[in-house]
Amino acid sequence: MMTPRPRILITLGDIAGVGPEVLVKAWPQLTALCHPIVVGDVGSLRRTIADLGRPKTVQPISRVGEAGPASDVIPCLVVETADLTNVPLGAITAAGGRAAYDFLVKAIDLTLAKEADGIVTLPLQKEGLHLAGLNYPGHTEILAERTGTKNFAMMLYARGPMIPQGLGVLHVTLHMALRDVFPHITTPAIYDKILLLDGIMRRLNPGPSRLAVAALNPHASDGGLFGDEERTIIQPAVAQAKAQGIDVVGPIPSDTLFVRAERGEFYGIVAMYHDQGHIPLKLLTGLAAVNISVGLPIVRTSVAHGTAYDIAGQNRADSQSLIEAVRAAARLIG
Amino acid sequence: MMTPRPRILITLGDIAGVGPEVLVKAWPQLTALCHPIVVGDVGSLRRTIADLGRPKTVQPISRVGEAGPASDVIPCLVVETADLTNVPLGAITAAGGRAAYDFLVKAIDLTLAKEADGIVTLPLQKEGLHLAGLNYPGHTEILAERTGTKNFAMMLYARGPMIPQGLGVLHVTLHMALRDVFPHITTPAIYDKILLLDGIMRRLNPGPSRLAVAALNPHASDGGLFGDEERTIIQPAVAQAKAQGIDVVGPIPSDTLFVRAERGEFYGIVAMYHDQGHIPLKLLTGLAAVNISVGLPIVRTSVAHGTAYDIAGQNRADSQSLIEAVRAAARLIG
Repeated sequence: MMTPRPRILITLGDIAGVGPEVLVKAWPQLTALCHPIVVGDVGSLRRTIADLGRPKTVQPISRVGEAGPASDVIPCLVVETADLTNVPLGAITAAGGRAAYDFLVKAIDLTLAKEADGIVTLPLQKEGLHLAGLNYPGHTEILAERTGTKNFAMMLYARGPMIPQGLGVLHVTLHMALRDVFPHITTPAIYDKILLLDGIMRRLNPGPSRLAVAALNPHASDGGLFGDEERTIIQPAVAQAKAQGIDVVGPIPSDTLFVRAERGEFYGIVAMYHDQGHIPLKLLTGLAAVNISVGLPIVRTSVAHGTAYDIAGQNRADSQSLIEAVRAAARLIG
Repeated sequence: MMTPRPRILITLGDIAGVGPEVLVKAWPQLTALCHPIVVGDVGSLRRTIADLGRPKTVQPISRVGEAGPASDVIPCLVVETADLTNVPLGAITAAGGRAAYDFLVKAIDLTLAKEADGIVTLPLQKEGLHLAGLNYPGHTEILAERTGTKNFAMMLYARGPMIPQGLGVLHVTLHMALRDVFPHITTPAIYDKILLLDGIMRRLNPGPSRLAVAALNPHASDGGLFGDEERTIIQPAVAQAKAQGIDVVGPIPSDTLFVRAERGEFYGIVAMYHDQGHIPLKLLTGLAAVNISVGLPIVRTSVAHGTAYDIAGQNRADSQSLIEAVRAAARLIG
């Protein structure tokens, strides 16, 4: 008996951005990876198909079980939301923000109810959410709230010709000024991230986790010459995780660490701040990295790019990140 | 009439490290790039040649004019220094430190006297200098002192299959704890680095400089959401340089900046701190980056690796960084 292909819900996100274009371009490859179903707006999909000149049929459905995805058939779960008829491309609107939220909530509820196996999200714009009176910074907080999750994180994940074995990065700090990161870099925070990373990497790859923790200072402080967080904060977290049997080393100077990971020595890295992990992962994938939610009770991955209003509707958006996000979700489900 | 090939002095550095091995391995390629002359120790070269089993002759010389480099002939300027007979591989000694210093000083004096056209340095160990009573942190300070230079810097430079057009990075801060960088990131310091970078890139590449300045904060602070150094400190430096007619843009979020540079949009980048520039450049070159002195009255480049005592004498050292350092020096001279 064949294993049924995973049913993956793809939320259309902000219809004023590049989401619908990326979806239509990636569609044939997505049907090879899973049983994909869009949660979104039929009108946006049809307009995008016409604009791109790619002959495809949109199948409006009201239940997951009705979906019949094929390389030229895009099933779209119709969601009750704002009127989107007059939402222009490249503009922040309350209707667009409201709809992106409603698509996501619908996908979460269906996945929690086991009608689908996982979610892949296309980008939304937090300003649109705010205009609609929805005060969330982004997807992750909506997902955490709706699934009742406290300890969660986003893993940036790269897989491609330069990094065929895949490389995941969890950040101890993310969207804050560099000068503000220091009080957040603590032994318990690093230890937590090592545990979360170990859990997700075991689900992505068979075999050993091969984790490493990045140093904070150049040359890992060169034995204490510049900075001491390696000895006082990072090493104790690594030692604690090792004592739990986790396959982890560090701290390692970040400029050599990512070269060693590229060469296959490590599959997962805990980075101390946003750019330390994002610079190498974006270089390794040419911007086609993906995000993977860690700690949620459901599988959820995401493209790593934003709505890209500046190029919306211009047939310039690249769909590789969506393909990789769907591939990663399918692996996590399988 | 043919342009004479540049006479490049290669200082052997610390003979207990991988310098002699790297030199002997790279030698045939170096003779294709320039008229190379070693400033170092004849005995170390002969031992290395025997150990590696590469048939070559060392030509001891006392003047640059006597050198007859060929793919199997290594001219070596004999320098009066400590007795090196008993210096073992992989050990810090006062004799090794003293010799590395004497090789460098000899090369500086010959280049200032125009008997040679430039210097490429193999690594030394600052602990060896200290044992010999020479209290310098490294090459750069010796070069600056001996040439009477005040405003100088080191540019990290990558050129290779992934980055054929070449990419140079000057750092506003380098060897200090990450938490200490903030008071050093000032408008005048950034402006100075843009000017130095523009000067060196014009000598390396014909045509426009194509410079960019990295942001300090993630997403370049997302319009002030996390941090304000982009607006208050970095933008004014870029504006000031632009007003001087310099081809520079920024600040740009560092995770997309290096992808854009890889794709050929920028040739030179001013980075705010060590790992911001070193992570991408080491990834782009697989550790074969080079260092280029900027602001000195003489041409000097260097390998970007250290003495690597742990693998000295094991025939495991890679010579690509030396080849690239010589290539860069030859371009700067030509």
